[in-house]
Amino acid sequence: MDNELKPMDAEQLRERAHKMVDFIADYYKNIEDFPVLSQVEPGYLRNLLPESAPHNPESLQSVLDDVQKKIFPGVTHWQSPNYFAYYPSNSSIAGFLGEMLSAAFNVIGFSWVTSPAATELEMIVLDWLAKLLKLPDDFLSSGKGGGVIQGTASEAVLVVLLAARDRALRRFGKDYLKKLVVYASDQTHSALQKACQIGGIHPENCRWLKADISTNYALSPNVLSEELSRDTARGLIPFFLCATVGTTSSTAVDPLPELGSIAKRHEMWFHVDAAYAGSACVCPEYRQYIDGVEEADSFNMNLHKWFLTNFDCSVLWVKDRHALIRSLSTNPEYLKNKASEAELVVDYKDWQIPLGRRFRSLKVWLVLRLYGTENLQKYIRNHIRLAERFEALVREDPRFEVLSGKYILRFAVGAPLTEEKHINSAWKLLQDAASTLLAI
Amino acid sequence: MDNELKPMDAEQLRERAHKMVDFIADYYKNIEDFPVLSQVEPGYLRNLLPESAPHNPESLQSVLDDVQKKIFPGVTHWQSPNYFAYYPSNSSIAGFLGEMLSAAFNVIGFSWVTSPAATELEMIVLDWLAKLLKLPDDFLSSGKGGGVIQGTASEAVLVVLLAARDRALRRFGKDYLKKLVVYASDQTHSALQKACQIGGIHPENCRWLKADISTNYALSPNVLSEELSRDTARGLIPFFLCATVGTTSSTAVDPLPELGSIAKRHEMWFHVDAAYAGSACVCPEYRQYIDGVEEADSFNMNLHKWFLTNFDCSVLWVKDRHALIRSLSTNPEYLKNKASEAELVVDYKDWQIPLGRRFRSLKVWLVLRLYGTENLQKYIRNHIRLAERFEALVREDPRFEVLSGKYILRFAVGAPLTEEKHINSAWKLLQDAASTLLAI
Repeated sequence: MDNELKPMDAEQLRERAHKMVDFIADYYKNIEDFPVLSQVEPGYLRNLLPESAPHNPESLQSVLDDVQKKIFPGVTHWQSPNYFAYYPSNSSIAGFLGEMLSAAFNVIGFSWVTSPAATELEMIVLDWLAKLLKLPDDFLSSGKGGGVIQGTASEAVLVVLLAARDRALRRFGKDYLKKLVVYASDQTHSALQKACQIGGIHPENCRWLKADISTNYALSPNVLSEELSRDTARGLIPFFLCATVGTTSSTAVDPLPELGSIAKRHEMWFHVDAAYAGSACVCPEYRQYIDGVEEADSFNMNLHKWFLTNFDCSVLWVKDRHALIRSLSTNPEYLKNKASEAELVVDYKDWQIPLGRRFRSLKVWLVLRLYGTENLQKYIRNHIRLAERFEALVREDPRFEVLSGKYILRFAVGAPLTEEKHINSAWKLLQDAASTLLAI
Repeated sequence: MDNELKPMDAEQLRERAHKMVDFIADYYKNIEDFPVLSQVEPGYLRNLLPESAPHNPESLQSVLDDVQKKIFPGVTHWQSPNYFAYYPSNSSIAGFLGEMLSAAFNVIGFSWVTSPAATELEMIVLDWLAKLLKLPDDFLSSGKGGGVIQGTASEAVLVVLLAARDRALRRFGKDYLKKLVVYASDQTHSALQKACQIGGIHPENCRWLKADISTNYALSPNVLSEELSRDTARGLIPFFLCATVGTTSSTAVDPLPELGSIAKRHEMWFHVDAAYAGSACVCPEYRQYIDGVEEADSFNMNLHKWFLTNFDCSVLWVKDRHALIRSLSTNPEYLKNKASEAELVVDYKDWQIPLGRRFRSLKVWLVLRLYGTENLQKYIRNHIRLAERFEALVREDPRFEVLSGKYILRFAVGAPLTEEKHINSAWKLLQDAASTLLAI
C-alpha cells in the first residue's frame, strides 16, 4: 500500500487533532461575533464547492479555511449565548471530551460482548441519573426495568409505542391493530404522531385532545376520561397514553398522578415525555413537576437539551425491559455469543431501532464527574434565574404581556454561555422592535 | 451563578481538549498491546464505580486514570489492526476530526433553517459519492431523488420499507396491511426483519427465501419468481424486495439486474443493501458488483464500515424522495419557517426516524478531502490484497479449506491499521489452534 495514507497514525492524529482543538477553541472565543441565525440563501453552498470529490488529498489547513469561509456563514450558532430559539442544545467541555473519547474508541456496542464497558457504563450512569431524579426503583437496572440511551426523544417514544402496540396485539390478536387508540394532548410533540405513522396506528385512532388556557395547556383528566368512555363504548382499544412535562410550545405540565391512575384503570402503557424540562428535576425544588412518575411505564428526558451533554443523548427508562425486547429483538446466527445466550448480560441492540450504537455513556459519565451534581443543579438554577430576569423585564414594559396564549414570543433560556447581559440585550432588541411596530 | 462551572470557556476547552488529544494519540500508539476482545466478566464494572454520581467535580486526570484502569479492560478494540470480527468499523484521523468539528458546532440540523450548511453539505457530499460510485442520475439531488445520511443500515432499510408500505396502502387501502409481502434471501441482514416488525408487516408475509451453495448464497431469481406466483395467486400483494451486495455471513452478491426487472414487473420497491461491500465499488474494477443498481428504488452503504468514516454514517439514496417524505413528515406549528413553507429547501427531518440530527456530513467531507479519492481506492485495494494473502495462507495448509459453507471461520479484513504482519500472525494463531485440535 502507498505509505502516504496513514489513516490512524498516532503521531499524525496527535498533530492534526491539536490543530483542530485550537480551531474549535478559537470558534468558541469568537462565537458572539456571529449572527445567531445563519443569513444565507437556500442553495448558497453549491456554488462554493466543486462538483465532485477531489482526486488528490488536500491539507487540513485548506479544509479549515473553507470551514471558516464557506461553512461558518451557513451555521446557525446553537451554542451562542444569544441563542433563545427552539430549546437549549447544550454542548459543554465535558460533553465534548466525551464525544472525542467515544469517536476514538469507535466501538459499535450493539451487544455486550462487542465492548462490555459500553453497555455496563450505560447501565451505571443511567442508574445514577435515576437516583438523582428520584425515579422509582422499578426503573433501576437491578429489577425488571432499566435505562437506555436513545438518540432522540422521537426514538424513545417510538420504541415504547411499539412495545405497547405489540403487547396489546399479543393480547387481542394481530388483526386488532386498527382498533388501537393513542391518547395525548394536542400540545404533545409531533414525535408521537410520527411514531404512530411508523407503527401503523390508524390516524383516526390518534386522539390529540384539546388543551387550552383553562388548564394552562395541560391535558385535562376529565377530557381524557370522556374520550375513553366514548372509545371503549365503540369497541376500540385504548393502549397508549403520553403525558408531557414541559410541552414544546408553552412548557405545560400534564397532571401525572391523575393521568397515571386513568392509564392503569384502562391498562394503557403510560409514557412520560420530559425531554426538555426533565433536567430541572435534578433540583429538589423542581422535582415536584414529575410527581406521579411512579405510575409511568416509561420516562424520557434529553440530556442533550439542558444537561450539558452534547447531542445526541436522550435517556429512556422503562419498568419492563422485556416488553421492549420482545418488540425489538432479532437473533441472527452471526450475532450469537456465549454471554448473550446465557442471558447474563444486557444487549442494548434489542432496546432500540438501530443495530449499531456509539459509546454514548462516556459523555454522560464525563459530565457527571467533571461537573458534579451540585454544580449541575446550580447551572439549572442560574438559567431559571435568567429566565425570571427576562420575565421581569417583560412585565416592566406595559406594551408586553406574559402569557401562554396563541400568538406569543417564545424565549428559551439555556445555552451554556448565556449570561445576564445576553438576556438584557435580547430584551433591548425586542423592545426596539416593539417601538418600531407601535410607531407605525 | 457560581463562577467555578464554565461549561464552555474557550481556554478551559483548549487546555482540556489538548490533554484529551494526547490521551487518545497514546491509545492509538499502544493499541496493539491490548487483547482485541475484552476479557472481562459480565458485571465487572459495577463494583469498580461508585453507587451514585459525585456531588463535587473531579479532575480530568482522575477521569482519564479511570478510563485507563477501568474502561480499557472492558473495551473490545475495534480499531486494533488485529481485529477481524464482524466487519470493519473504520475510524480515521479525518473522520475523527470531523466528529470533533461536528461536536463543537453541536447544531441540531432537523430543518434547513436550523443550520443551512448542515443540510447543504450533506446534499453535496452525497452527490459526490453518488458520482464516485457511478450511481444513476436519478439518485442525485438535482432530480426527484437524493441522498441522506442515516445512522445505520437498519434505519435506512426501515425508512424505505415504510415508504414502500405506505405507497402500497395508499394504492390498495389501509386495511391491506396484512396482505403486504416482503421478499429477500435468508442471507439478508436481520435489520430487514426488524424493520418488518416495526412497520407491522405480518411475520408470515416475510419471505426469507432459501439461498444455498448452488448460487453461492445469492438469491435465485427463479426461486423468487415461483414464490411471487404463489403469493399473487393467493391474493397477496408483493410490495418490497431487498437485495444484498455482500451479505453478512458470506459476502454473497444477489443478481441485481434480474431481481430489478422482477421487482419492476410486480411494482415492488427494490432496495439494494450494500452496507458492507458497497465501499469497494468506488474502485472501477469492483463497480460491476452493483451493476443493476439502475433498477433500484433505493441504495444503501455504510461509510462507517469500510470507508474511513467514524460511526455512525450510513448513506442512503432514493429515486423518489417524496415517497420518503410522505411517510415521515410531520409539520407542527413550532417547526414552521419561511424557507420550508416556500419549498425552497430540503428538511432532512422528513427523511429519517428521529427529528434531531448531527452535522454528520462534515466527517464525510473531511475524509474525501484529506484523503482524496485515489488514496481511498488504494486503501480498499490494499485490504483486498491482504484478504487474498490470508486466502493464500489458508490454501497452503491442507487441513483448511476455503468455502462459504455452514461451519466456517469468518475473517474480515478492513481495520485502518492492519498490515500484512497482522494477517500473518492471525493465521499463525489459527494454525496453532488447528494443530492442537488435530493432535487430540
